Amino acid sequence: MTGGAIPVDPPGMFTSPAFAQGMVLPAGRTLYVGGQNGRDASGELVEGGLGPQTEQALRNVIAVLEAAGSGVEHVAKLTIHLDPDVDPDAAFEASRRVWTARTAVTVLLVRTGAPGSLVEIEAIAAVPD
Amino acid sequence: MTGGAIPVDPPGMFTSPAFAQGMVLPAGRTLYVGGQNGRDASGELVEGGLGPQTEQALRNVIAVLEAAGSGVEHVAKLTIHLDPDVDPDAAFEASRRVWTARTAVTVLLVRTGAPGSLVEIEAIAAVPD
Amino acid sequence: MTGGAIPVDPPGMFTSPAFAQGMVLPAGRTLYVGGQNGRDASGELVEGGLGPQTEQALRNVIAVLEAAGSGVEHVAKLTIHLDPDVDPDAAFEASRRVWTARTAVTVLLVRTGAPGSLVEIEAIAAVPD
Repeated sequence: MTGGAIPVDPPGMFTSPAFAQGMVLPAGRTLYVGGQNGRDASGELVEGGLGPQTEQALRNVIAVLEAAGSGVEHVAKLTIHLDPDVDPDAAFEASRRVWTARTAVTVLLVRTGAPGSLVEIEAIAAVPD
Repeated sequence: MTGGAIPVDPPGMFTSPAFAQGMVLPAGRTLYVGGQNGRDASGELVEGGLGPQTEQALRNVIAVLEAAGSGVEHVAKLTIHLDPDVDPDAAFEASRRVWTARTAVTVLLVRTGAPGSLVEIEAIAAVPD
Repeated sequence: MTGGAIPVDPPGMFTSPAFAQGMVLPAGRTLYVGGQNGRDASGELVEGGLGPQTEQALRNVIAVLEAAGSGVEHVAKLTIHLDPDVDPDAAFEASRRVWTARTAVTVLLVRTGAPGSLVEIEAIAAVPD
């Protein structure tokens, strides 16, 4: 995919089908997606807990990518913030359903500033010309 | 503002006067402002708790932006780390007093490595030619 | 070092030999290193607690930098996530042994998504042409 982000997988390090150890973005414009949570278009958090909130948060990230002329294949890194008091597995399962591109990832167990939100996800991506 | 950061507000998502869902930086140099807290030029945390510390931290971010030839209109994202044990409202009020540009934002409730600090703020910005 | 990252140290702010208040990356390709922890090539966390885990995590960051054609002198920012329940001093000592370049830094006291991991470090760096 011309202009996409390029995975970096050093020899001797674990290679995952789900994420890359690093990603290189080409020179050019860069999109910063601020923290997205599980709110839908009505402004309410979706029901059902961490799994549905994660799906919605990733759909919101994708909506911002597309509005900027970018897309999942241009994403360099996702930072995923999960509530420390819930089982993270539902978030990982939801991610696999919604997000198929490999990218660099950091997962932090931390509460965010949005009351009731169990997940918040931000992204950095190239914007192709 | 030529060369400034451009807000991305997807149709169907909440549009806030205070922050953008995403920001696009033009191609060119990029400034990364490391975590700034409420220390003034004397090296001491300012008195008065979260509100004054937030104001000072944002002033420190602005000082780094200006020293690099950037400015608030070029900022793509602020990441605001707030102590989980204090009421965050004082931080939001202080932000509104000091910071008027729209940008992408993530707010995390997390303690940082600086003892006594209630807030730490980092930023990413374009440096215009 | 041509093409390296350039420290920003505003007048009137604390200047540290260990970190910069900000860093400017030149225009061009950018590497995003996802969260690295203290796993060695066998995939196991190294023994000995926070100090050895921090050394290994930084060696993993360096391995990703080198695999991408970048290096420590091109790093704009390190974000260091430390387990909130361990004394952070061992991490700072280990960092000084392994990492000598000045860069912008944020240190957060937060648990990450990798069970048993006491430290996770991510980085952003220029990739020179």
